[in-house]
Amino acid sequence: MALLLCITQWEVEPWLERLRRLAPERDIRAWPDVGNPADITYAAVWKQPPGLLASLPNLKGIISLGAGVDHVLSDPTLPNVPLGRVVDDNLTTRMSEWVVMHALIHLRNQNDYYLLQRQKLWREVMPSPAAHELRVGVMGLGVLGVDAIGKLKTMGFDVAGWSRTPKQIEGVKTYAGGELDAFLGRTDLLVSLLPLTPETRGILNRSLFEKLAHDGVLGAPILMNAGRGGLQVEADIISALDEGVLRAATLDVFETEPLPVDNPLWEHPRVTITPHNSAISDEDAVGRFVLRQIERHERGLPFDAPVDAARHY
Amino acid sequence: MALLLCITQWEVEPWLERLRRLAPERDIRAWPDVGNPADITYAAVWKQPPGLLASLPNLKGIISLGAGVDHVLSDPTLPNVPLGRVVDDNLTTRMSEWVVMHALIHLRNQNDYYLLQRQKLWREVMPSPAAHELRVGVMGLGVLGVDAIGKLKTMGFDVAGWSRTPKQIEGVKTYAGGELDAFLGRTDLLVSLLPLTPETRGILNRSLFEKLAHDGVLGAPILMNAGRGGLQVEADIISALDEGVLRAATLDVFETEPLPVDNPLWEHPRVTITPHNSAISDEDAVGRFVLRQIERHERGLPFDAPVDAARHY
Ligand SMILES: NC(=O)c1ccc[n+]([C@@H]2O[C@H](COP(=O)([O-])OP(=O)(O)OC[C@H]3O[C@@H](n4cnc5c(N)ncnc54)[C@H](OP(=O)(O)O)[C@@H]3O)[C@@H](O)[C@H]2O)c1
Ligand SMILES: NC(=O)c1ccc[n+]([C@@H]2O[C@H](COP(=O)([O-])OP(=O)(O)OC[C@H]3O[C@@H](n4cnc5c(N)ncnc54)[C@H](OP(=O)(O)O)[C@@H]3O)[C@@H](O)[C@H]2O)c1
Repeated sequence: MALLLCITQWEVEPWLERLRRLAPERDIRAWPDVGNPADITYAAVWKQPPGLLASLPNLKGIISLGAGVDHVLSDPTLPNVPLGRVVDDNLTTRMSEWVVMHALIHLRNQNDYYLLQRQKLWREVMPSPAAHELRVGVMGLGVLGVDAIGKLKTMGFDVAGWSRTPKQIEGVKTYAGGELDAFLGRTDLLVSLLPLTPETRGILNRSLFEKLAHDGVLGAPILMNAGRGGLQVEADIISALDEGVLRAATLDVFETEPLPVDNPLWEHPRVTITPHNSAISDEDAVGRFVLRQIERHERGLPFDAPVDAARHY
Repeated sequence: MALLLCITQWEVEPWLERLRRLAPERDIRAWPDVGNPADITYAAVWKQPPGLLASLPNLKGIISLGAGVDHVLSDPTLPNVPLGRVVDDNLTTRMSEWVVMHALIHLRNQNDYYLLQRQKLWREVMPSPAAHELRVGVMGLGVLGVDAIGKLKTMGFDVAGWSRTPKQIEGVKTYAGGELDAFLGRTDLLVSLLPLTPETRGILNRSLFEKLAHDGVLGAPILMNAGRGGLQVEADIISALDEGVLRAATLDVFETEPLPVDNPLWEHPRVTITPHNSAISDEDAVGRFVLRQIERHERGLPFDAPVDAARHY
């Protein structure tokens, strides 16, 4: 009866300390100090070493330490036990902060105003549309997409959404599956909040950018991606920016993270980069969430946010 | 029966053309081409030349082309006729865009992320609080303040407000008049949406900055002003920034506009400047509003947004 932390690419110590502090009565271990593999009944994971989970004979459940699970599912030997992910109000709120802030920065030409300030130029940047004139399209109508849409609407944007299966959101035009082209055709500012799955990998590519609206108030369309880096084709983003197919891009996630210093996105004048922190969450809250999932499962209840491994999210 | 445009510091031609297009049946003139002063029954004004309005013997009403009226009331010879101002949904929405965007930029340390990007540094900026941890205080609970508060609340900020007379806003702690110090003491991020009056001139000064909260999640407090430049003492803002009394300032309005090139605010690393465009409005909408005010007054109705000259707003 032990919980194993299977973490790579993050520091494991703070997580071990946090969980032990929150549940001092539990036997909590951190890979590579597994001890007897037969002791481990639950695993809390972030990019676990492939094969590790398959080596735990009594594993009953896996919980992703993030909202996405692509990093868990990429392990071909993943055992067939229930998989849960983090859904947390604090994380959701912060993602919407990022979405609304960057949408407003584009609407209000704020990046140009920073440049003008450096030149001490007092000047209006045109065009300067109101929010209702900018058609925002949100890809992914899950926990994050729906929250972002509500807040974008409050700010006055003209919002639509796209998801795999049909969804109804009051006052918002929604598109599903094969209606993607129609959704793209009315979108001036595209916000990607999709999970990374075999179906969505590389979806943010040149062909998609060309289908976005090119008759909007700002001219060429804008891309924002905070889903996963694997959704985007970075070479296509750069050529689309350089050829006027995209006006600007704001990216929180990348094909390779941390973004390598030689990646041209860093210094592209119309790219804004944030270091995968769009939805930085309260880590104690995540710790409590993970422990609650184990308690639920021990009592025979399902995880709060179960993942359908066949669907990949 | 003529409408006179009394405009300085803006281009008058586009306004003349716009109003003539919207009301081709009206006699519309633009100073200095007044014609017979006795013909003028209404004046639409932006920083009118002092004395001009007093020289119009049949003037029945004055309408400010902006939301503020300090530029009208500064004329000591202003005739005692009804004065109206612009209240327009589009203008209000845009001001709230500016307020929410810049509040989020401060919350999310976005100005630091721009700097890190220029250095190709992939790094988290700390502290990185959630919106509910940042106490925003809005000065001025009029048309603009109330709209901004609603949107700041939707984004999760902990919001309070201050006005001259007591106000009730659901879910928001409000302070009036002499409760200013208590309001400042719980404010990490101050948003000024006040009118400029004899009482509010210079209110954003060193003594006020010192009364803001200095125990907040971000350390020193932040100032945002989109009311009027006359509200702020710019020398105090700079010294407060340099001495750690203020963390940052975002200013849309200035003591002198356009902001002179030798003003040190331009290149202060913790100052963001926008060129009095926080609430840039749809000019046709303003034109229609002005014409509607004249129609109302001709029919014996009061202006939609009458100004109490004794109160100065
Ligand atoms: N950058 C960050 O810091 C950060 C933080 C948290 C999360 N994320 C990312 O955000 C993603 C979304 O999070 P969430 O909590 O909103 O997930 P969620 O609740 O599972 O929602 C996923 C949404 O994507 C849609 N979708 C999935 N596959 C699709 C496809 N092939 N075509 C069209 N739509 C598809 C789903 O459609 P249906 O509604 O039809 O099922 C659903 O609406 C996560 O998977 C993670 O990768 C990033
Ligand atoms: N930067 C721009 O582009 C731009 C654009 C539009 C407007 N503005 C400025 O924004 C200002 C506010 O616009 P608004 O439409 O919201 O005005 P408003 O509806 O007249 O509201 C003014 C608010 O300020 C409060 N106030 C006035 N004097 C005060 C004092 N001495 N102490 C405390 N509170 C005081 C009033 O208190 P009560 O509620 O008690 O009366 C009221 O809540 C305008 O006057 C204009 O200067 C700037």
